[in-house]
Amino acid sequence: MDKVKVIEIKKSVYESNDREADMLRQELKSRGIFLLNLMSSPGSGKTTTLKQTINQMKNEFKIGVMEADIDSDVDAITIAKETGVKSIQLHTGGMCHLDAGMTKQGLDELIENDIDFAILENVGNLVCPAEFDTGATKNAMILSVPEGHDKPLKYPLMFSICDVVLINKIDVMPYFDFDMDECIKNIKYRNPNATVIPVCAKTGEGIDKFADWLREQIKANI
Amino acid sequence: MDKVKVIEIKKSVYESNDREADMLRQELKSRGIFLLNLMSSPGSGKTTTLKQTINQMKNEFKIGVMEADIDSDVDAITIAKETGVKSIQLHTGGMCHLDAGMTKQGLDELIENDIDFAILENVGNLVCPAEFDTGATKNAMILSVPEGHDKPLKYPLMFSICDVVLINKIDVMPYFDFDMDECIKNIKYRNPNATVIPVCAKTGEGIDKFADWLREQIKANI
Repeated sequence: MDKVKVIEIKKSVYESNDREADMLRQELKSRGIFLLNLMSSPGSGKTTTLKQTINQMKNEFKIGVMEADIDSDVDAITIAKETGVKSIQLHTGGMCHLDAGMTKQGLDELIENDIDFAILENVGNLVCPAEFDTGATKNAMILSVPEGHDKPLKYPLMFSICDVVLINKIDVMPYFDFDMDECIKNIKYRNPNATVIPVCAKTGEGIDKFADWLREQIKANI
Repeated sequence: MDKVKVIEIKKSVYESNDREADMLRQELKSRGIFLLNLMSSPGSGKTTTLKQTINQMKNEFKIGVMEADIDSDVDAITIAKETGVKSIQLHTGGMCHLDAGMTKQGLDELIENDIDFAILENVGNLVCPAEFDTGATKNAMILSVPEGHDKPLKYPLMFSICDVVLINKIDVMPYFDFDMDECIKNIKYRNPNATVIPVCAKTGEGIDKFADWLREQIKANI
């Protein structure tokens, strides 16, 4: 099995996460690094989406990935093996989210590899990760069709703070009571400015639109 | 739209949640009340599973349901409308889990209605709810097929503390890369004593087995 670096991250020592996050964002901008924070429920397809996206963009950018999990290294190994980009595993030691200080512990390792596009795959959780600014340039989330179109009503903060919402697993829409129009309406109710992109990470459908969105954001950040 | 009682729950004042949870469990036992704590990711089918289960058991037990959500009352209204049992909505005010003190705030309301089987539908989250003992007699969780069979490897504590794991949405197994044997193996790796029941809450398949399991537990608790 491929080996990936595993970092057991420590609790942050900073008193104000918001301040630390702003400082990290500024530092990344001055170094010309774009940081994407990707969030979702467990099993919504974060790793598969990243695989497809990275394979479309890795010839244009020097990409590095941080996979945050409470336990297990399977995601970092998958990314390393199937995309070839630098991938590290962050073990949160039971913690349900990452904050800016924790993100920085992973970034220090990626920056040594001279990357310009860093991706943080956050812990699978629609609640806590929304409460902690990681210092990311942009926040993205995935809502998958089987979870249902009512989720923006139940997890308001997550949908409010994300710049882009991917609606994943659209290939199985015929088998679920999922109303796409209602879903987009619910997302826009929480966040009128959110970009919504339906995708199927398994087949790659729609991932080109997400890659285009990312290219625009990265360009705007320089 | 039907009206249900909404309780804005407050942060617990107790120093030791474990002690408070044990006391609550004892109190419930002495009153002859069985409390089930049902947990899962967002969109795994908690409310649909409860609807089917309650409709199979409501003639044998006086059931009351607490629906915990950060926001929205849709689940409590659905349960009240489609099962007719007493249902209250707990708003957690952004909190990602319920502890024993918070559960008690909802139970005080249900106990007035002379129930003997109380159900707490916890916040949709595979991380934090596992860390806080609610005082429940038994813990149940749902893992749905679209989430993938690897989830017990990534969310170890949740699978360790649950007495029963329902594998929901088995009707869509043909459309997902889900390996049932592997899933059961992963659950047993985290918790050799867990009972595993495959179900389809939408059609009701397997819910009779969950109801039988609940009857046994309720009987053992008297």
